[in-house]
Amino acid sequence: MNFFKVLKKDSKTSARVGRLSTGRNIVNTPVFMPVGTKGTVKAVTSEQLYETGCGIILGNLYHLYLQPGIEVIEEAGGLHKFINWKKSILTDSGGFQVFSLGKIRKVVEDGVEFKSIIDGSYHFFSPAKVIEMQAKIGSDIMMVLDECIPFSSDYRYVMEAAGRTLKWAEISLKAKRAINSKKESKIFGIVQGGFSKDIRKFCAESISEMEFDGIAIGGLSVGEERSQTIDILNYTVNYVDRTKPIYFMGLGDPVGIIDAISAGIDMFDCVMPTRISRNGSVFTSEGKINIKNKRYTKDFTPLDKKCSCYTCRNYTKSYLKHLYKSKEILSSILLTIHNLYFLHNLINEARNAIIENNFSNFREEFKKSYAENQQ
Amino acid sequence: MNFFKVLKKDSKTSARVGRLSTGRNIVNTPVFMPVGTKGTVKAVTSEQLYETGCGIILGNLYHLYLQPGIEVIEEAGGLHKFINWKKSILTDSGGFQVFSLGKIRKVVEDGVEFKSIIDGSYHFFSPAKVIEMQAKIGSDIMMVLDECIPFSSDYRYVMEAAGRTLKWAEISLKAKRAINSKKESKIFGIVQGGFSKDIRKFCAESISEMEFDGIAIGGLSVGEERSQTIDILNYTVNYVDRTKPIYFMGLGDPVGIIDAISAGIDMFDCVMPTRISRNGSVFTSEGKINIKNKRYTKDFTPLDKKCSCYTCRNYTKSYLKHLYKSKEILSSILLTIHNLYFLHNLINEARNAIIENNFSNFREEFKKSYAENQQ
Repeated sequence: MNFFKVLKKDSKTSARVGRLSTGRNIVNTPVFMPVGTKGTVKAVTSEQLYETGCGIILGNLYHLYLQPGIEVIEEAGGLHKFINWKKSILTDSGGFQVFSLGKIRKVVEDGVEFKSIIDGSYHFFSPAKVIEMQAKIGSDIMMVLDECIPFSSDYRYVMEAAGRTLKWAEISLKAKRAINSKKESKIFGIVQGGFSKDIRKFCAESISEMEFDGIAIGGLSVGEERSQTIDILNYTVNYVDRTKPIYFMGLGDPVGIIDAISAGIDMFDCVMPTRISRNGSVFTSEGKINIKNKRYTKDFTPLDKKCSCYTCRNYTKSYLKHLYKSKEILSSILLTIHNLYFLHNLINEARNAIIENNFSNFREEFKKSYAENQQ
Repeated sequence: MNFFKVLKKDSKTSARVGRLSTGRNIVNTPVFMPVGTKGTVKAVTSEQLYETGCGIILGNLYHLYLQPGIEVIEEAGGLHKFINWKKSILTDSGGFQVFSLGKIRKVVEDGVEFKSIIDGSYHFFSPAKVIEMQAKIGSDIMMVLDECIPFSSDYRYVMEAAGRTLKWAEISLKAKRAINSKKESKIFGIVQGGFSKDIRKFCAESISEMEFDGIAIGGLSVGEERSQTIDILNYTVNYVDRTKPIYFMGLGDPVGIIDAISAGIDMFDCVMPTRISRNGSVFTSEGKINIKNKRYTKDFTPLDKKCSCYTCRNYTKSYLKHLYKSKEILSSILLTIHNLYFLHNLINEARNAIIENNFSNFREEFKKSYAENQQ
């Protein structure tokens, strides 16, 4: 079975419906992948995740490398076994995390040196090492090491970093080929290039020419205006090989996801939907709300009347507000379940709209209803 | 169906097997009741609790009164509906919590005045009010307001407080009778009396003479040596009406539970088993362990080889240590599930040993194995 197959294309937008076959399970696209940074999607069990419809999660190489360490996961029989997750895992290369370290990391031509935030020890990630480690922990989809640059970078640095990322992409592919692995994992290249259209175009074309199984668009949603994100995104996707799955790294808000699906994006990830759950914020079909709000004290309706997640089937806003106010762990559990189910369900509806050639209407109606009631 | 029925008595000890019929479900005794102080057993969903075998939990009137307030729970349709719990709930009167407040409460003859720890406002709990509030939130088993005294209290104060508790017990029963409730909730009296055997005897006999559905032994496990607890317990149970269920308030360690079952106790509660879960401590058939221990870094076996809880079926010590070290919420979830299942299963084994007339052997073997390997 091919790794990726487009099943239906929208006639008015670049939106499309497809499926990934990771060798472990079938993942319908478009798909939002919840982030399990340290080997767990925060606050939920695997079973609770399956119930939200989730078939693929993210693991973060950088965090897992520091704690518990690659060796522990390898000896445990791989990441899936270690964390009790039976569906697919995409592992992030750690590029984004390492570059977030700012002063405690140093980019050189063949990789990046960084200081552990846990014990201050020095470490070095090279593109090849990053692929080897992802293979060791049994990732289903590996990401190449890329250089993530700040929003404010000047043209010359954007160019320099993009060049390095392309060079690293080639080294990564070579490293992947050298691994004699029984398991056929996939590898994605990453398009960088900041906010310069010509560099984005060059990177998109270069990455597309390489033998990657999928193409990620990185370096967006890093602080710019949303209109700028969508502009660069729409421009960039014109130059990527659209026979492959396209993954927008770091986007997780409902409206952003719907817009990016329009632009032809197949895969998403972001810590935001799970992070805001722990702060009492939830998506609803009528906009984002915060459960802290006093108006919910005696509101005995579910978070979202249209939602059929575990939380909405069993709990009221009144109780959820009480849990949040009482700082109960169950608050994080129930709100995380809702937000993940909400995104899965929203994308599933978008998918059906694409199949029925009704996506543009669906998009406008959703955005209108979501924005109108935003609190 | 009678509320309580003894099904089998051990021949060598006072241990017994029975069942409670709360009108909501059948609860096998002896039973450990997990504490859901603020309307949730911390870190787990109702479904996860059912899976540990749990058929009855505790709610705490004092905490629920302060947040979200009795009115909210009443309007929600009662505590069961509010928190999505379909089995039984015993509600604590708040006596213990109010008396823990120390200087910010004042006992008077007809109740206790206290200051809210949330907003500093003043409140008054009388024995009748406490029963009325428990009825309002739909408690299956209500507890009377009692005066809990410090371990170090002098004889005269123990006597005075015990006298008040007895007077309040009568007022509580009267208040219960006055409530015209469709739902037949049960009410338990509480035996106080500190560490004075004669006062304990008097209280046990007095409470037994009143028309309570069950008898609780309070004021133990308050800082005294375990041998003293067991001594007073063994003495006190001689004077209670043993046709009723006997509830030891505030005991939750495996060895203590087994000893108290020997003394004839049917019901237990304690925050400790769930609290220590959040600090990485777990019961195992070979003693208590802490998952923080370095030796578990590469230990790919379950917490307890003999345990078949969700956690032990799916996760290794290595992963659980990693979760704990990473401060992940899932650590609290999985360790709570294990500790509650462990206690449920231990008591179930004790139950079977009583039925098979083998309880003394079971007790000694368990205590030996548990103590030997304690870390």
